Amino acid sequence: MPGEMTTNRLEAFSDGVIAIIVTIMVLELRPPAQPTVPALLRVAPSLLSYLLSFLVVAIMWVNHHHMIHSVRRVTARLLWMNLNLLFWMSLIPFVTDYMGKNYRQPLPVAMYGLNLTFCAAAFYLLRTELVCQYQDDAERSTYHASIQRKNLFSGLLYLASVPLAYVSVSLSYMIFFSVAAAYFLPEKKLAASGERM
Amino acid sequence: MPGEMTTNRLEAFSDGVIAIIVTIMVLELRPPAQPTVPALLRVAPSLLSYLLSFLVVAIMWVNHHHMIHSVRRVTARLLWMNLNLLFWMSLIPFVTDYMGKNYRQPLPVAMYGLNLTFCAAAFYLLRTELVCQYQDDAERSTYHASIQRKNLFSGLLYLASVPLAYVSVSLSYMIFFSVAAAYFLPEKKLAASGERM
Amino acid sequence: MPGEMTTNRLEAFSDGVIAIIVTIMVLELRPPAQPTVPALLRVAPSLLSYLLSFLVVAIMWVNHHHMIHSVRRVTARLLWMNLNLLFWMSLIPFVTDYMGKNYRQPLPVAMYGLNLTFCAAAFYLLRTELVCQYQDDAERSTYHASIQRKNLFSGLLYLASVPLAYVSVSLSYMIFFSVAAAYFLPEKKLAASGERM
Amino acid sequence: MPGEMTTNRLEAFSDGVIAIIVTIMVLELRPPAQPTVPALLRVAPSLLSYLLSFLVVAIMWVNHHHMIHSVRRVTARLLWMNLNLLFWMSLIPFVTDYMGKNYRQPLPVAMYGLNLTFCAAAFYLLRTELVCQYQDDAERSTYHASIQRKNLFSGLLYLASVPLAYVSVSLSYMIFFSVAAAYFLPEKKLAASGERM
Repeated sequence: MPGEMTTNRLEAFSDGVIAIIVTIMVLELRPPAQPTVPALLRVAPSLLSYLLSFLVVAIMWVNHHHMIHSVRRVTARLLWMNLNLLFWMSLIPFVTDYMGKNYRQPLPVAMYGLNLTFCAAAFYLLRTELVCQYQDDAERSTYHASIQRKNLFSGLLYLASVPLAYVSVSLSYMIFFSVAAAYFLPEKKLAASGERM
Repeated sequence: MPGEMTTNRLEAFSDGVIAIIVTIMVLELRPPAQPTVPALLRVAPSLLSYLLSFLVVAIMWVNHHHMIHSVRRVTARLLWMNLNLLFWMSLIPFVTDYMGKNYRQPLPVAMYGLNLTFCAAAFYLLRTELVCQYQDDAERSTYHASIQRKNLFSGLLYLASVPLAYVSVSLSYMIFFSVAAAYFLPEKKLAASGERM
Repeated sequence: MPGEMTTNRLEAFSDGVIAIIVTIMVLELRPPAQPTVPALLRVAPSLLSYLLSFLVVAIMWVNHHHMIHSVRRVTARLLWMNLNLLFWMSLIPFVTDYMGKNYRQPLPVAMYGLNLTFCAAAFYLLRTELVCQYQDDAERSTYHASIQRKNLFSGLLYLASVPLAYVSVSLSYMIFFSVAAAYFLPEKKLAASGERM
Repeated sequence: MPGEMTTNRLEAFSDGVIAIIVTIMVLELRPPAQPTVPALLRVAPSLLSYLLSFLVVAIMWVNHHHMIHSVRRVTARLLWMNLNLLFWMSLIPFVTDYMGKNYRQPLPVAMYGLNLTFCAAAFYLLRTELVCQYQDDAERSTYHASIQRKNLFSGLLYLASVPLAYVSVSLSYMIFFSVAAAYFLPEKKLAASGERM
């Protein structure tokens, strides 16, 4: 009997959670015990790990914004698909901290890759809901389907980073940074052509 | 003399607090000291405890949203009943952490159940305020009364989980997950029938 | 040249900070090391300290909301007076943690009282700004002046709690809880008379 | 194909992140282990470091608000320039904690200065985007250019604080507090002349 949740509120709540995720990660950066350069350098991997996650979460935020913006109707399924995404995103500070403190070990790097795989899968599921809402709109369907292919491709790359961490963690890091760059750069190209964002 | 607080602001503040509660819990997940699978597995109970609380808080958020949405007038009583609810919800990260680190011990599991009992009681009190505002609307009164029965039932189950933890913690866990599932699933059924959310 | 800040944005930012203050305090409640009742009881003072601060911050939030709501013009002075208030409020988690862990020691209790004294003083200064904006409105001026007297009185009580902690910490605790009750109860009376909130 | 991000949403997200940054810093203030005055005094440098950062972030928030308010179009470049600024701002709790715990050591003080230099540079880049949007509006261009000069000047002062910390940390502290004062005071003057804020 109560009304539907509006897109606005879904967006505001998701934004709140994402803003907190992105910011609390910095709490896990513990300042070095000694005020010396070598001690500071030992924190560098944690800082780089934070930088990567800041970039990843920022990209997810931008994409999430665009996705929610084209929602027509906040159904229960969509709401839970969104909460599913937020759950996996909320684990990013945990794997970031773990990887930052053990950046040469395959297990933490694989866990980071696995977490991002689940995030990509959650994005995929959420967008599937959205594609359903646009079955009658050929142009938008095509648009969402093309983004979904890119989403699927990066999800598969993240999945590949899990076993590859046991070959060499450098391969997994290359995947993490390449996917981030791939999402970061086209955004600019598209904007230049005045099409989105 | 100053005007009443609007429903919007009450909702925005509550949402802010709930978004923070749900996200800061992840800060309590400390990455394992060693980059090994056994060390990672020792964190698994904390991760499952976090998953359960994420689900519980997400369900409370959805229900709280619907409840506040049907508020007609933000009275002082309603405001304090809402703050009472937020107080008990704000303790969830504390009991989640306690239970995750001692998942086989009856006391932490009983404390978790007790906290959820107080949350359910706070929801009940808040909805009682709401039912009062709809005394003249038979249809809505019936609707709120039926939700309140479900609320009361889950509150009693949570209360039962407190002594049951001393029989077997598994019984309490079954209650926690069953109540979550019971709130999670009907939501979908109702949405399918197009009635709410 | 850019426009004034709106009351809405000042309120949204303040609410965000207050929602975070009230919620992060719970992060300072560390679950007991042992899953035993005596270990849990040792956390009880921290929990009570948290309860007190939750109540104090909730009351400040309600009062702050009413105050900002009657702002006519967001001047630079008002903005900085508000940031001054938020600064002192942001220290509450710090003194709460300190007092909770040393609840029988005069120094932490005195520090808690001193922090609340500064909060009360910041409220007083902020309201003075507001009274200035209503110099031409006798009714509202009288209203704000009457609240300000109550504000001044509780500020003086908080100030008294600082030296009194060295006589007996119980006296200071009595002041903290009495002031909270004094703000909590009349709110209900006023609401009943339909005048505010 | 989806619409542009609105200024409102960019502002709300940025405000959320800034509100969290300013508030979580207090979590790094650990209450002293002993309830004694000497133990409390050992926390004083951390408290002062927090006060400085609260002031710095508050000033950035006010300036950021004015800047975003005059945005005409949320382009991808602007969005990423804003995320760049938020990234550097998000490191402030980290350097604040580091400096507060080692306030007499040149390295942490230099790191603090370096972080503020990057924040100032990020502000400069963000405003450059904005100036581009006002190429056709001479009056506003002049206005933004004059603020940008002040921004550049404080950025250079922050940069100078990095090597100066190795001469004497007091020099760096003087720079930090002077720049804060320089931003804090004129704001009042301008407001008095009724021109802004």
